[in-house]
Amino acid sequence: MGKAVCVISGGMDSALSAYMAKEAGNEIVALHFNYGQRTVRKELECFYKIVEDLGISTYYAIDLPFFEKIGASALIDRELEIPQNGIVPGVPVTYVPFRNGIFLSIAAAIAEKHKADSIYIGVVEEDSSGYPDCRAEYIGSMQRSIDLGTKNETKISIVTPLIDMSKADIVTKAVSMGVRLEHTWSCYSKEDCACGVCDSCRLRLRGFERAGMKDPIPYCAKG
Amino acid sequence: MGKAVCVISGGMDSALSAYMAKEAGNEIVALHFNYGQRTVRKELECFYKIVEDLGISTYYAIDLPFFEKIGASALIDRELEIPQNGIVPGVPVTYVPFRNGIFLSIAAAIAEKHKADSIYIGVVEEDSSGYPDCRAEYIGSMQRSIDLGTKNETKISIVTPLIDMSKADIVTKAVSMGVRLEHTWSCYSKEDCACGVCDSCRLRLRGFERAGMKDPIPYCAKG
Repeated sequence: MGKAVCVISGGMDSALSAYMAKEAGNEIVALHFNYGQRTVRKELECFYKIVEDLGISTYYAIDLPFFEKIGASALIDRELEIPQNGIVPGVPVTYVPFRNGIFLSIAAAIAEKHKADSIYIGVVEEDSSGYPDCRAEYIGSMQRSIDLGTKNETKISIVTPLIDMSKADIVTKAVSMGVRLEHTWSCYSKEDCACGVCDSCRLRLRGFERAGMKDPIPYCAKG
Repeated sequence: MGKAVCVISGGMDSALSAYMAKEAGNEIVALHFNYGQRTVRKELECFYKIVEDLGISTYYAIDLPFFEKIGASALIDRELEIPQNGIVPGVPVTYVPFRNGIFLSIAAAIAEKHKADSIYIGVVEEDSSGYPDCRAEYIGSMQRSIDLGTKNETKISIVTPLIDMSKADIVTKAVSMGVRLEHTWSCYSKEDCACGVCDSCRLRLRGFERAGMKDPIPYCAKG
C-alpha cells in the first residue's frame, strides 16, 4: 500500500484527483492551503468535507499569509477585478505568481516527512485558465527538482491524473466514482452562491453542460 | 541596472551573496524567512542589520509558521538534539525537508511580482552541512522549474555566487568587501552567544581559522 500527499483545494479537479489516489490503494495525507484568496472560507469548508468523505485521518490545512504581502493576483488583491466576460487567450490576472511551485515544494516537504511515495495534484493543462504552472513540462521539471533537492533515499512521484482531461471528462469521471461534487467549489469570487461568470465558473459550467449533467452547487441569480 | 531578490538568512554566506548582488549593480529586494527555527529572533535581527548596512528599502520578512507543523528537523523540533560532536558524512538531523525548494519558490513569486531578473541565494555545495537542496545540480533544475512555471515573459536567473567557495574563501571575500560579519549569525542553537560546537559553528570557525582571521561574534564560554 502506497502513501500519497494529496493537494486538495476544494475544487472539482483536486477532489477527483484525491479520489483517484485512494482508488489506487494509497493511504492519504491531505493538504490544503489558505493563501488569502477571496473564497478562503468556502474552500476550507469543502476541503474538510472531502477529507471526511474520503475518511482521511491525516491532514494539513496550512496558512500562507505571506501571499497577501505579495498580492499580484486578482484572486488575492481585492483592488484587482476578477474578469467576468469570458476566457481570453494569455495568462489572466487571476494567475498567482508561481503558486503551484510553492504548493508542490511544501507538498514535497510533507511527503518527505511522512515517507510518502507520491504527490497527487489536480492540475489540468488544456481545458483550463492558462496558468504556466499547470503545464506538463513544468510538472516534469518540478519532479526532477524534488528528486535532486531531497535526500537520496527519498523517492516521491508527482502524479497528475487529470492533466490531459477536459472538464467534461472530469465531471463524468467524478460522477462515476461517486465524488460528492456538492462538496466542491470553483468560483473565484463568491462563497454563498457561485457567480457563474468568472473563468473558473465558466469552465465548470461548460464541463457539466458537455457531460450532460447538472451542477449541484448553488449559483447566484443573474443581476 | 538589474533587480535582484536576495535571500538573506542572517548568516555569513547569504550576507556576502547580497553584497555581491549589490556590487554587480543590482537594486535589491531582500527576503528573509522565519520558519520556527531555534534562532529565529537572532537571525531576524541580523537580517535587519544587513538590510540597513546595504541601504535596502524593499524587503520581506516572511513568516512560515507551517514549518513547525512539519517539524522533521532538529532546527525546528526541540525534541531532537542538535549534534555537537562534529560533522559526519550523510544528511544530518538538522536538514529541513526541501527548505530551499520552498524558499526559492517564494523568491520566484516575489521576483515575478517585482519584475526582478535574478534571485541571489548563498548556497554552498562542498564546504557545507551536506544538505541535498544546496547542490548545484538541484539549483539547475529549480532554474528550469521557475522558467517553465512562470509567465513566458518572466526571465529570472538563480545566482549562486558562493556555491563552489570554501568557508575560508567566504570569510576572506567578505572581509575584503567590507561585509560586517558581526551582523551575521550562524549558530543553530543559541542566540546570545554562539555555541561553537554545532556543525554550523564548526564550519564558520574553521573558515575563520583557515582564513587567518578572528570571528567578531561572541561565543559561549566552554562548559
